[in-house]
Amino acid sequence: MLKLNTQNILKTKIGPENGIAESDLCSFCKANGKSVKKIFDSKNQAGYAFLTLPDDNDLAKKIEKFAAEQKKNKWENIVVLGIGGSALGLIALREAVLGPLYNLYSKPRLFVLDNIDPFYTANFFSTIDVHKSLFIVISKSGTTVEPMALYAIARGKFKQSDVKKHFVFVTDPEEGLLRDIAKKDNISTFEVPQKVGGRFSVLSAVGLLPAALIGIDIKAIFDGAKKMRGQIGKSSPEKNPALLLAATQYLMDIKKGKCMTVMMPYSSSLYRTADWYRQLLAESIGKNEKTGPTPLKALGTTDQHSQLQLYTEGPNNKLIIFLTSATFAKDPKIGNVLPKEIGYLNGKKLSEILAAAHAGTAGSLAAAKRPNLTIEVPTCDEENIGALIMLFEFQVALLGFMYKVNAFDQPGVEHGKKITKSLLSKTK
Amino acid sequence: MLKLNTQNILKTKIGPENGIAESDLCSFCKANGKSVKKIFDSKNQAGYAFLTLPDDNDLAKKIEKFAAEQKKNKWENIVVLGIGGSALGLIALREAVLGPLYNLYSKPRLFVLDNIDPFYTANFFSTIDVHKSLFIVISKSGTTVEPMALYAIARGKFKQSDVKKHFVFVTDPEEGLLRDIAKKDNISTFEVPQKVGGRFSVLSAVGLLPAALIGIDIKAIFDGAKKMRGQIGKSSPEKNPALLLAATQYLMDIKKGKCMTVMMPYSSSLYRTADWYRQLLAESIGKNEKTGPTPLKALGTTDQHSQLQLYTEGPNNKLIIFLTSATFAKDPKIGNVLPKEIGYLNGKKLSEILAAAHAGTAGSLAAAKRPNLTIEVPTCDEENIGALIMLFEFQVALLGFMYKVNAFDQPGVEHGKKITKSLLSKTK
Repeated sequence: MLKLNTQNILKTKIGPENGIAESDLCSFCKANGKSVKKIFDSKNQAGYAFLTLPDDNDLAKKIEKFAAEQKKNKWENIVVLGIGGSALGLIALREAVLGPLYNLYSKPRLFVLDNIDPFYTANFFSTIDVHKSLFIVISKSGTTVEPMALYAIARGKFKQSDVKKHFVFVTDPEEGLLRDIAKKDNISTFEVPQKVGGRFSVLSAVGLLPAALIGIDIKAIFDGAKKMRGQIGKSSPEKNPALLLAATQYLMDIKKGKCMTVMMPYSSSLYRTADWYRQLLAESIGKNEKTGPTPLKALGTTDQHSQLQLYTEGPNNKLIIFLTSATFAKDPKIGNVLPKEIGYLNGKKLSEILAAAHAGTAGSLAAAKRPNLTIEVPTCDEENIGALIMLFEFQVALLGFMYKVNAFDQPGVEHGKKITKSLLSKTK
Repeated sequence: MLKLNTQNILKTKIGPENGIAESDLCSFCKANGKSVKKIFDSKNQAGYAFLTLPDDNDLAKKIEKFAAEQKKNKWENIVVLGIGGSALGLIALREAVLGPLYNLYSKPRLFVLDNIDPFYTANFFSTIDVHKSLFIVISKSGTTVEPMALYAIARGKFKQSDVKKHFVFVTDPEEGLLRDIAKKDNISTFEVPQKVGGRFSVLSAVGLLPAALIGIDIKAIFDGAKKMRGQIGKSSPEKNPALLLAATQYLMDIKKGKCMTVMMPYSSSLYRTADWYRQLLAESIGKNEKTGPTPLKALGTTDQHSQLQLYTEGPNNKLIIFLTSATFAKDPKIGNVLPKEIGYLNGKKLSEILAAAHAGTAGSLAAAKRPNLTIEVPTCDEENIGALIMLFEFQVALLGFMYKVNAFDQPGVEHGKKITKSLLSKTK
């Protein structure tokens, strides 16, 4: 079960100028309790349907069957061609469960190509053996520039008779360019869910297919998400984790001028969860000239040596959300080798040092009247990343109500796309 | 030569509420021209001595000699144990010159361990062959918790007689724990420069030793830095790139409420330069409750699908600095394989698509009255990363004058360190 510690956002801890009174937080949560119900009641509607994704046992079975069949191909590489919501969620899953070094020591490796950098792309394709690779192309319409450009490059490496074996598409169930190509070339497909936007789609085939192909237990992810959904559904407003988070973020922005939310995991495995959250928050809520938090990502302890000076003494305009892990699957211990000046490290596990660093940072920020809260997971595994995903998706849906914006569209990016397309259509 | 395009910060382009009048920018630069001279005049003083680092030809020779001697060991891995300024700069160098995938296809690989995550650390040490690895421990005092904890773990893998071969220290020239250990165990050392702080130290042995060990031409880095220094020194104020950048950032913050600076390279190789800059700006200028920009990193095109919605329609509180590369060492071309709906991509080089995406993003942001500027490097190589480093270091030193803060200390992080130490000293 996740633990939420909100002591360091309270007036009693960080003073009246920057802190919230517990009673105000409580009554704000109560006033917004109806939004929780509204979201549950809307679960079959476009956008809100993210809530139902973990119930799709048929999909889980279909994915697991496909993953089992693929074993015979002994893939060295699973290569995802996708961007934004078709990349960040599955990267978060890979790292939370298997850690950032997984590709270094295990096969099949999972690569996610979510940029079209020429040097990177050229080096990638000259390094991996495409004939030992499965390419998963993810795009609802099949018109997203980046994955389609990369698809074109990958496709050019194969003769027509090998295409069926080396490609699988995750795309619109009925229409679009990838659907057309799949029909023509008999390529296996999975569906991008109809009623769920990209940034809320990680618990569909978009995130789960690549995850299952590298051995992640996708049913356990579903279990964690469903448990969190249950907890959100049955908690009283003032104890509802999603509501508490949303209320804190909203009140800190509107009442206390904290226009940024820093997500700072003290866990390398959760760093990319912060990256996924960055899109979730920015695209869902970033629609109002006047209000709405800008997400930042940071990593503990690394960024203590990069950003902490600013967070402590610079403008007091940030809410910091720490993510911590109570235990780690592996946990090296320091031998008795350091001289007495730093002898206090001898005999310590790295987890103890990390926990003390988090406590030191949270405490010193609170002493400097900087609001911060901590979400602790028991450990980094499928169930807990599933729970975090549901928690944050629900929180952001709640923020949509609080900020009175549509959390599920992204109208602001169309103009740039048009300019880009027109520039590329003009050049020969 | 770097090109700076500041059209999209001007009043004429983005309107009077968010844009700066060209005449105001010009007169502000002129008024601050004396700070440029002051910095050059202070080049032998603590802090400002970053300016003289590229003149140390003796150091370059010493490093190159050491790197040449190490070739006989046929290292598979160069492993840096360092954090903050002892990590971010050298990561930026590695990626700018060799790209983010370098470790995938070349030896020796360069790993930088700048966190103490237990799972990550355990997996790292169980994966690499320590007997084919050279460990570079970087800490001025030898009391920085993270590198010393990792040093203890690494050291525990070797018998005493192998220590001299497998370790090299970059530390204080005279005192400190690492200096003591080096003397006792006859370990090779290089110096952390006396008058330069960690975040300004990348052009010393801190950044250059690891770089040289993976084949980067460190003299070319010096050349680029010196050329930029020369350009900064001889430009008139209104054409001085460092002054223009600093003035823009300062005026946008103070006069236009842009409390965040987003650095967004359209180049995967320059993404970690944005990370290095994040520390440089945050620790140097983040010292005033009222003012000072918070740095953000983003990556084009990736973050068009994550952050652009917010940047375009959310609060207008950001200055965006794009970094682009005019050419790429490798540049794949798309074959004639895509259907007509996206046929405009057929025959295009990835660099063309990337450039069009940047133009589309910059243009759409300007249309939405969001200030942005672009720094273009001719290509990603040693000379240009050297130039960028000098440019940004000088810019941040100038910001110190504008914001009237000491750009070279970081007092805000001490309290947290004390709590951490006291927690660790108490536990058994």
